[in-house]
Amino acid sequence: MEIYLDNSATTKPYEEVIETLGSTMRNYYGNPSSAHSLGFKAEQKLREMRTSIAKSINASSEEIIFTSGGSESNNFLIKGFAKPSSNKLNADIITTKIEHPSILNTFKALEDSGIKVAYIDVDDSGRIDIDALIGSITKDTQVVSVMHVNNEIGVVQDIELIGKLIKGKSSRVKFHVDAVQSYGKIFIDVQKSNIDLLSTSAHKIHGPRGVGFAYIKKGLIPTSLINGGGQEKNLRSGTENLAGIAGFDEAAQIVFKNQHENFNKVLEVKKYFIEKLKEVDGILINSPLEPYFTPYILSVTFKGVKGEVLLHALEQKGIYVSTGSACSAKSHKSSEILKAIGRSEIEQVGTIRFSFSEYNNKDEVDYVIIELNKSLKFLRKMNKR
Amino acid sequence: MEIYLDNSATTKPYEEVIETLGSTMRNYYGNPSSAHSLGFKAEQKLREMRTSIAKSINASSEEIIFTSGGSESNNFLIKGFAKPSSNKLNADIITTKIEHPSILNTFKALEDSGIKVAYIDVDDSGRIDIDALIGSITKDTQVVSVMHVNNEIGVVQDIELIGKLIKGKSSRVKFHVDAVQSYGKIFIDVQKSNIDLLSTSAHKIHGPRGVGFAYIKKGLIPTSLINGGGQEKNLRSGTENLAGIAGFDEAAQIVFKNQHENFNKVLEVKKYFIEKLKEVDGILINSPLEPYFTPYILSVTFKGVKGEVLLHALEQKGIYVSTGSACSAKSHKSSEILKAIGRSEIEQVGTIRFSFSEYNNKDEVDYVIIELNKSLKFLRKMNKR
Ligand SMILES: Cc1ncc(COP(=O)(O)O)c(C=O)c1O
Ligand SMILES: Cc1ncc(COP(=O)(O)O)c(C=O)c1O
Repeated sequence: MEIYLDNSATTKPYEEVIETLGSTMRNYYGNPSSAHSLGFKAEQKLREMRTSIAKSINASSEEIIFTSGGSESNNFLIKGFAKPSSNKLNADIITTKIEHPSILNTFKALEDSGIKVAYIDVDDSGRIDIDALIGSITKDTQVVSVMHVNNEIGVVQDIELIGKLIKGKSSRVKFHVDAVQSYGKIFIDVQKSNIDLLSTSAHKIHGPRGVGFAYIKKGLIPTSLINGGGQEKNLRSGTENLAGIAGFDEAAQIVFKNQHENFNKVLEVKKYFIEKLKEVDGILINSPLEPYFTPYILSVTFKGVKGEVLLHALEQKGIYVSTGSACSAKSHKSSEILKAIGRSEIEQVGTIRFSFSEYNNKDEVDYVIIELNKSLKFLRKMNKR
Repeated sequence: MEIYLDNSATTKPYEEVIETLGSTMRNYYGNPSSAHSLGFKAEQKLREMRTSIAKSINASSEEIIFTSGGSESNNFLIKGFAKPSSNKLNADIITTKIEHPSILNTFKALEDSGIKVAYIDVDDSGRIDIDALIGSITKDTQVVSVMHVNNEIGVVQDIELIGKLIKGKSSRVKFHVDAVQSYGKIFIDVQKSNIDLLSTSAHKIHGPRGVGFAYIKKGLIPTSLINGGGQEKNLRSGTENLAGIAGFDEAAQIVFKNQHENFNKVLEVKKYFIEKLKEVDGILINSPLEPYFTPYILSVTFKGVKGEVLLHALEQKGIYVSTGSACSAKSHKSSEILKAIGRSEIEQVGTIRFSFSEYNNKDEVDYVIIELNKSLKFLRKMNKR
């Protein structure tokens, strides 16, 4: 029995993705930069995939820069557009308090280098304070970065509204969206949402790890994070990871074909899970069934237990979940988003994230609920002694 | 007929590497950062590979940081240690004029940001002026970066001697080696050569693209290029590309097992090629059979033809070669290294790089020589008209 409920950390690659990786490595082994026909064939393939990926967010192919994943995309896009301004009061770049570490630590690094930053609060449902965000934009603001779907509790920010309001306030500001947890799950149209910059990662949608893309609206030119041979329009050098990109494209094609079906399937699982959680005592749901929450994530606080201990009890039964956030599960920092929605320090420590893919089903939920109840009963009794 | 002589641009992945990638994606799909046993299993695997890779250069495992390839490693290691000093005269960082664009353009970017740089000349055999290099080191020098094997003509720098002399002059300077073209082909011992920082890339040794490592001597702490979740000792964030790393390790295991055999095999091919080139008129050998040239690269200038035209003539016969350097084959810049060894502008344009792997053999050379003679005869006649 293996019930994998840690899909926001990473997903099991599709078999088709693995096949595509292998066949690309075998059949397209030329370097796209090589002038001969093996290089040309590889470059042609790369071009096809860029076009296909671009379509998935309603962009054009010259707006897609392939990278090594979500973290690189976030670092590249923020560092690439953040310049210290002469004004000493206004923020140069703005983000929210609940971002992924690849945004927050990038902001911190830039702050250390003299760039002025601002972090916007979220309300008690986890949604960012849009008035404060728009209010903080000045003529000096270069970038506003907002994550689409939060990786800890799954709250969804209204990027279409935010994009519209940002552009209404200042056409000079570049709007960046960290779409790592939403790409392939929730529809994104960069044009409709006025998005200038966007980050994604393949391994969250059953693609290979170490691949992602950065969308950069036509006309915008960032500083490169990786200088060199001039690949990717001279914005991201390094021999192109053709097989990885092909695997990403394959995964994207599959998830986009099934996007609605998957969404509804996962939503049913989450609904059922929340329904069944009524049979479990002493819990708080951090990811309610609201339209502004993704169905792919269900964060639950279990009173009177440590999340880490519960996690290990569940893994004994073949159930794989996460405590804190996807990418920093092992660091024990308090969670900004859980705090914002009203969870005390001790409740934060008792929080588990169940994250779904289309492979999960209700039978698994039934089993999880049984094992949860057993483990909780045992652990809470132990704690009382 | 497919004779691939562009192995310095990229190599055909080993079948074992492709298999390893697939099996790792299937069997280790947990995120190494996850706290549960699937994560632990993945982390364990990562640790094993780190140890195995570290051994290959006589480093310890905590000195290996996995990256997305050679360009990232070069950018990371140079940018990570280059800080502008208060002194306005002395160079902060030093390199040579014949480096790969991922070094040269990184230096340019740093120069633009206020860091003082120096570029050392090479002599007419392509070897760097070691006296000038050592002479340029001052108390302000932070990094000296020297490529091990040049990607255009294959000249090998004496990194052991250079390392010794650098450390003799100043123990504070960090010695960086771009080993992308040498790793797995020419023995490297980071301790013996006093190397502090080293860059490699998997796809040059039949491994996957988009993977490499940065060696960082214990005790040295660079600034991160990619901030985020804290992976790779908080020096390089992003979900680890476990399958890619496994493929890299697999490729490394194979090439290191066969390192001497491959070297000798390729040397025989190069010797034979140079011998047979006596049957070809109007040529200049840029990669002589000297101990300070790698056998893996043979650069030849063909008088009275354009390299690009010759390249396309050869590809009609199934022979794949390169003009200029590996990673900028499509840009038509003049070559610093070809200039240094005395090639005129017009000779540079007539230069072809044949680069070998252990898969090449003398029969292929025979065929190439026949086709070369045919093509040259035709092209030179055309040009005379
Ligand atoms: C000497 C040298 N350094 C660095 C690189 C860059 O490696 P990668 O393509 O993996 O980024 C190359 C590859 O072309 C190279 O030949
Ligand atoms: C919201 C968010 N952004 C960025 C990332 C980083 O992506 P990657 O691991 O591909 O670097 C993650 C992944 O954990 C994430 O959840």
